[in-house]
Amino acid sequence: MGEIRCDNRTASALVLLSGGQDSTTCLYWATRRYGRENVSAIGFDYGQRHIEELKCAQAICNDLGVHFEVLALPAVNSITENALTRAEIPVDIASVIATKPKDDGSDLSPVPPNTLVEGRNLLFLTYAAIYAKSKEIKTLVTGVSQTDFSGYPDCRDVFIKSANVTLNLGLDYPFVIETPLMWLDKAQVWALAQELGVLNVIKEKTLTCYNGITGTGCGNCPACTLRRRGYEGFIKESTVCTN
Amino acid sequence: MGEIRCDNRTASALVLLSGGQDSTTCLYWATRRYGRENVSAIGFDYGQRHIEELKCAQAICNDLGVHFEVLALPAVNSITENALTRAEIPVDIASVIATKPKDDGSDLSPVPPNTLVEGRNLLFLTYAAIYAKSKEIKTLVTGVSQTDFSGYPDCRDVFIKSANVTLNLGLDYPFVIETPLMWLDKAQVWALAQELGVLNVIKEKTLTCYNGITGTGCGNCPACTLRRRGYEGFIKESTVCTN
Repeated sequence: MGEIRCDNRTASALVLLSGGQDSTTCLYWATRRYGRENVSAIGFDYGQRHIEELKCAQAICNDLGVHFEVLALPAVNSITENALTRAEIPVDIASVIATKPKDDGSDLSPVPPNTLVEGRNLLFLTYAAIYAKSKEIKTLVTGVSQTDFSGYPDCRDVFIKSANVTLNLGLDYPFVIETPLMWLDKAQVWALAQELGVLNVIKEKTLTCYNGITGTGCGNCPACTLRRRGYEGFIKESTVCTN
Repeated sequence: MGEIRCDNRTASALVLLSGGQDSTTCLYWATRRYGRENVSAIGFDYGQRHIEELKCAQAICNDLGVHFEVLALPAVNSITENALTRAEIPVDIASVIATKPKDDGSDLSPVPPNTLVEGRNLLFLTYAAIYAKSKEIKTLVTGVSQTDFSGYPDCRDVFIKSANVTLNLGLDYPFVIETPLMWLDKAQVWALAQELGVLNVIKEKTLTCYNGITGTGCGNCPACTLRRRGYEGFIKESTVCTN
């Protein structure tokens, strides 16, 4: 009896790329899984506070030789009010850091962090799906994670699965949404970067900081705090494993 | 024992309005159901061939005293190629007219009409939901119809139901999508307009024509043909009923 072989390298994938730690890790994960010649990326300019991240994304794609498409979504900022797209609204640090969900994602806090851009991930996935179908790409890769979801309902696994069905019905196309980080915490995302051989790339070339500073960032904003805590956790776990 | 009363007039609704026959009929349906003071409308400028329809929509909203919000979605045209948004692509008349689905919407033709803007309704519903939640509106009204869906997968009832679940999960909000035209054919949509007392408004002030001519339109494009056939069917049925 022959071996059952499953060779995904003949398939192609579109990565939703922001230029931050999570989505960039997903980009490298996808190039490993599908071959870099079969991977492309898409990003969104929606008036985000840390627009510099798209430049990081472009630079990383240039290094990899991966095509990067950026779509302008000006309507997002005109209908939402939040600290991520409005410079005049300060980020509420406590609300971003404090939220920690149950494993089943059921305990959404009554007031989500004020960096939440409502409906963002469904918009991004829909634009990505429209673009992907036009290129005959069936796999969409997104870096959302339920483990460290900061109270964002559209990072939950149940949302992604529902969105997958909706996209397949709406575009009559067999998309598969892959979420390699769904059940990883921030320390484990750093560990994945190490496993993929890109720890330094992620550390130095991605942008998570709300103040737009690449790499280790400003060190003070909620995004920097979460990123640093994750890295410290990763280093601690690595040390335990080594000894 | 008291009567069970269900008074929807305390609720509010957002109508997805293009200025065409279907969505305008839905707008009047919504003002009857919820009271015009509780209804608002949202439209989308995505580079459509018949952009004049948004002016019709604005004029109708002005007449009704209903707020109309228009969002610019320039990215749609940059990632899709179709006859509805690209002036250089002629509308393929045969493909638009010929497609007639089974009742269960299962027989999507292998090649949909070339006026299909992939994923359009999910984008529109997502933007509408984001806007609605910001105004504490839970009801979204859309004029999609499976009966005369012209092979567009995102007009099917199963898609709308799936999108409803996805939006509720993604925005953590109890939206209800209402589709008053889902099971009506074009003749029955005209009959609904008559029942609502707005037959002449729909006939004279809405725009369906791909060539941008209000009311009866150019008379030759697929949209005009479908609209006329529906009207003729309505007149025939009305005559039969009267005699």
